[in-house]
Order: sequence, then C-alpha cells, then structure tokens
Amino acid sequence: MNLQQTMLSAIETELKNQIARLDQSHTKEFHEMLTYHMGWTGEGAGPNAAGKRIRPLITLLSTASINSNNQINKGINLNWLHAVSAASAIELIHNFSLVHDDIQDNSELRRGRKTVWTKWGQPMAINAGDGLFVIAYQSILDLSKHYPADMVVQAAQILSEVCLKLTQGQFLDMSYENRNDLSIEDYWHMIGGKTASLLSACTHIGSLLGYAKPEIVEAYRLFGYHLGLAFQVQDDVLGIWGDESVTGKSVASDLVEGKNSLPVLFGLSQNRHFSTRWKQGAITQTEVSEVAKLLEDEGAKEYAEKVSAEQTQKAMSYAEQAQPDGEAGQLMLGLANMLLKRNQ
Amino acid sequence: MNLQQTMLSAIETELKNQIARLDQSHTKEFHEMLTYHMGWTGEGAGPNAAGKRIRPLITLLSTASINSNNQINKGINLNWLHAVSAASAIELIHNFSLVHDDIQDNSELRRGRKTVWTKWGQPMAINAGDGLFVIAYQSILDLSKHYPADMVVQAAQILSEVCLKLTQGQFLDMSYENRNDLSIEDYWHMIGGKTASLLSACTHIGSLLGYAKPEIVEAYRLFGYHLGLAFQVQDDVLGIWGDESVTGKSVASDLVEGKNSLPVLFGLSQNRHFSTRWKQGAITQTEVSEVAKLLEDEGAKEYAEKVSAEQTQKAMSYAEQAQPDGEAGQLMLGLANMLLKRNQ
Repeated sequence: MNLQQTMLSAIETELKNQIARLDQSHTKEFHEMLTYHMGWTGEGAGPNAAGKRIRPLITLLSTASINSNNQINKGINLNWLHAVSAASAIELIHNFSLVHDDIQDNSELRRGRKTVWTKWGQPMAINAGDGLFVIAYQSILDLSKHYPADMVVQAAQILSEVCLKLTQGQFLDMSYENRNDLSIEDYWHMIGGKTASLLSACTHIGSLLGYAKPEIVEAYRLFGYHLGLAFQVQDDVLGIWGDESVTGKSVASDLVEGKNSLPVLFGLSQNRHFSTRWKQGAITQTEVSEVAKLLEDEGAKEYAEKVSAEQTQKAMSYAEQAQPDGEAGQLMLGLANMLLKRNQ
Repeated sequence: MNLQQTMLSAIETELKNQIARLDQSHTKEFHEMLTYHMGWTGEGAGPNAAGKRIRPLITLLSTASINSNNQINKGINLNWLHAVSAASAIELIHNFSLVHDDIQDNSELRRGRKTVWTKWGQPMAINAGDGLFVIAYQSILDLSKHYPADMVVQAAQILSEVCLKLTQGQFLDMSYENRNDLSIEDYWHMIGGKTASLLSACTHIGSLLGYAKPEIVEAYRLFGYHLGLAFQVQDDVLGIWGDESVTGKSVASDLVEGKNSLPVLFGLSQNRHFSTRWKQGAITQTEVSEVAKLLEDEGAKEYAEKVSAEQTQKAMSYAEQAQPDGEAGQLMLGLANMLLKRNQ
C-alpha cells in the first residue's frame, strides 16, 4: 500500500472503533443507523456509500508533511498515526452535519441511498446525528493517549469553533431560502461557515498535531480555508454550467432548486434580465439552459470563475508558506489540485 | 445574597456569556432562539421559563463542598467560581437535549411556552439544539482558563460519556414507544441514560474540580447517580398517583400518555388485570383513576416506592462517604432532600 492507502485504511479502522462505542446489546439498532450512514452496512454499502474521506485524509497529510525544521522543537518523533483520532473526529463532525442537513432539507437520498431519516424516521435521525456529534468529541479527546493535554484542549477548541461556524452557516443557509434580496456579502457570511471552515480545521488541527511552529500552523490553516472557498465557488459554477457526466448532478440543477449560489447573487446584483426572471419564481427544467445562458451573458460565470481562481491563488500562496514536505506533502498538494480541477 | 443565590447568579451570567458567542450581526435570530429557550427573552420570559438550574447548582456545590482533608493535595486554594464554565456546560447539555426532545416528542409547549420548533420550525430547532451542544463544549473547554489541561480533558471526557449515555437513553425511550412487552430490566437500561447520568456528571465533574481525592470523587459520582435514579422513580410514581397541585401535571397523565414507567412495567410483569387492560390500547381520561387503582392494587405503587427508597438510601450512603463540607455541603444535602421529598 502507498501512504495514502495506508492512511485511508487507518482512518476507516479508527472510525469503526469510535462508533463501536454504541455496539452494545441494548443499542444494536442505534449502532446500525450510524454504520449504515457511514456506508459500511445495509443496502448499497461500500466505498461509494462511504464517501472519499477527503477531510480526515487532509488532516493526516497535514500532520505527516511537517518538516523537522518547521517543528516547535527539532527532532520530535512524528507518527501521523497518533493523530488519527483527530482525523476521525473531523469526519464524524462532517457526517453529523450531513445527517441533520438531510432532515432539514427533506432530502430522501444521499449518495444514491436512502437517508437515515428516510429509513428510521426524523426523531431517530436527529438522535443518530447527535450520537455522531458526541462520538466526534470522544474521538478528539482520545488524542490524550498520544499528545500532551494542552494540545488536546487546543485541538478540541479549534474543532468547537468550527462546529459553531457550521451551525451559523446552516442557520444562514436556512434563513436565506426563499429570499431573493441577498447580496454577495451575505454569500461570504454563509459560505465561510460551511465547506471552508471544516477544511481549515483539517489543516489547522493536522499541522498542530505535527508539532508545527505557530506561523506554519497559521499557513496550513489559511491554505485549508482558501482551498475550501475555492472549492465551494467552483462547485457553484459546476452546479449551473457543469458537465453532468463529471459532476453526477443534472445540469443547472442549482437553478431549478433555487440555490443562492455565488453566480446567482452576482446575477441579482446586476439588476438585469436574470434578476427580473429569478424574482418571478421557480425556474423550470425546460427553461433552465436559457436562464443559465442569460446568467452567463450577464457576466456571472466569468465573475465566479475569477473569484474561484483568486481563492485558488491564495490557497496556493499559503501552501508555499506552509512548506508541506515529503511524500505526504506531495500527496496533499495533489489532492488539492484534484479538488480544484474537477471540471477539466 | 447567600451562597446559593450567589452561585445561581454566577451561573446565569456565565450561561449568557457563553451563548453570546452567537450574538453577531448576521446571526441575531439564531442567538434569539437560544436566549428564548433559556428563558431570558421573548413571550413569557422570566424565572419560570428558565427552570431551576438545579444541575449547574449541584455542580458548583460539589466543587465548593470539598473539604481540604479530602483534596489530592492539602491547601489547594479552592474557588468554586473557577468551575462555573463546567456548570454552564452541563446546563447547556441539558437544554440541548430538551430542544431536540421537544421535536422528537412533538411537544408544542415547555414550561407553559411554545417550544423552539413550534416557533421557528423543526429544521431551525434541530440547528438551535446543535448550537447549544457546541457551546456546551466550548464552555467546558473554557475551564482551561483556571485548571490544568489534564483536568480539562478529564472533565470533557466525563461530559462526553454522559452525552453518549443520553443519546442511548433517548434511543431506547423512542424504541420502547408503542411496545408493551418491556421488562423491568429494560427500564433500567433506558433510565440509566437519562436523569441519573446527567446528575452523576454534576457531582462527578464538580468534585473533580474541587481537587477531591479519587475515592471522594467516586463517592460524589455515585451520590449523584443514585439521587438521579431515586428522583426518576419517584417522578414515575407522581406521574400516576401524584397530587396535581404539587406536580403541576394532570393526575395519572403518564397512564394516558402510555409512558413505560417503572410502575407500568411492574404491572405488566404481574400478568394480571392491569396487564390485560394496558395491552388493549390507550387509557382514556375517564378510566384513568380506575386503572391507577388497579395498578396500585397489584402492588406497583408499593414496589416503585420501595425502589425509590432503596435508591435514596444508596444516594445518602454515598453522600456520607463523600463528606460534603461547610455551607455548600449543607446546601447540597438540602437540595437533594428537596428533590426527593416533593410529594410530602
């Protein structure tokens, strides 16, 4: 196995061990809800159901890519496996938010399978999400097996700040539904609390656990943050003008769903034909390519691509400052490039 | 102000400060959901809406009642105010569980006011509960301002174990709905993860933060646990045979709601008239006193009162081992007595 496969395997083992806390005689079905959601059990179980585990992988690659010269003390014996419970914690937080999001959005399917609430009902699904949340904290506190307590506290604090941002992002996302008076500034408030904050937690906590110096930790954190923003904006572009065979979503589905994405908010700010049409109500499937064309003509695609490129540029500039080293460093930069070049 | 009032005031200030993390320009309404639920704002705000804050009070009384002889090192300068963010964390966990419970149980009212989901809808209420949960962790991690990091990690681990038990208890509670084949053993599994586990966290974390010796911490923990069990069983008795003017619930409402309380499970285990009637379907308001009488005749009230007395006895025996000292010790024992003598 290469390093990436070794890490992915260690992550999966750790996640299973963490969730096994619920594998007790009276709570078998509770345990099953979580193993089903994680993609390990039930109909359609397998790698496609589990997702790519990109967040925990970036966490471990951050830890493993800290060069000895960039550590707080030279010669610290670094073993990335010691950070695996932090990687697991971040993946569990991600999955907690998915389980609750699916209820909030009334989504019946995720990765082609029934969502937890569709299978077990909303009350049980709320509780399943809560269970993942608690276990995420148990997982990060397990760092104390390998790290000094002050680092454990710091990692848990970073995770908590990000979780609070996630709930704020989720609040704004729900508040913004059915509103068509939003500005581009509103977009940044919402999006800062979603993909970007969780990715910044990966590189932030990961580098911290590599015993990186404060300025290196800060560069890793900002690398993750801008990588997340670039990815999110690019996702917005693909959601309107993407190639269905690449994205797996039907083309322009974000327009039909009325999603307040960056191109749409740019379009609204132009107060031209797109804005007029958008405010008249839901876009139907038949007019979707026409509306996408309108939005492109008014400069929204160009604008969003420019923003995504700027964020990519920032991410790469922080990556340079972070100086990720060795095979892990190469893998992390490769992963970042893959995330940002999905449309090519 | 006496000590209890001083503590209650410190708790309220800390809770407000913790929740103020959400008091930002873009998340005013999110902040409002939490301050409303906590009883500080909105229609009907005031002490009755806030609840009694018994859990954080017991936490601080546990910290403050550790005798110098019972500390790990003599002469530690003990300031209970340093533990207030742990007390706040436990109250926030309690309230997180209430917000989610109200959604799960479809309860429209709590303490005479509309529940969060009734006011803001289920998706927002799920997120409000999640917000309280995150802030609870931020609150307990704030202990690091006054305590060594290893104690902070330990306190956060205790809190997490209890939270996992809460989700397990909630899972069992929901699983048991509409079942009439439950045993008394099932009851203990469910109830151990509810009132009792959270009360044990109060005395466990509280005494730990008083720098108590391990054997004293263990006595405090078990005192809280058995106090919680005694209280819960007594609550079950009052839910069927209680005095409405004392409990504030309509008499025998637990029977009408079909609650799997200890007296009911005892009645089922007897396989006599009550069991037959219970299995035929919902008890109506008109037959409720007759069914309560039937259950009493079959020995359920006597049984449950005996169990409650046994648990009270255990709680008091651990209280003796815990040796709570001074004014704080007196107040804590007084509070325990008050909790256990509601029907007198």
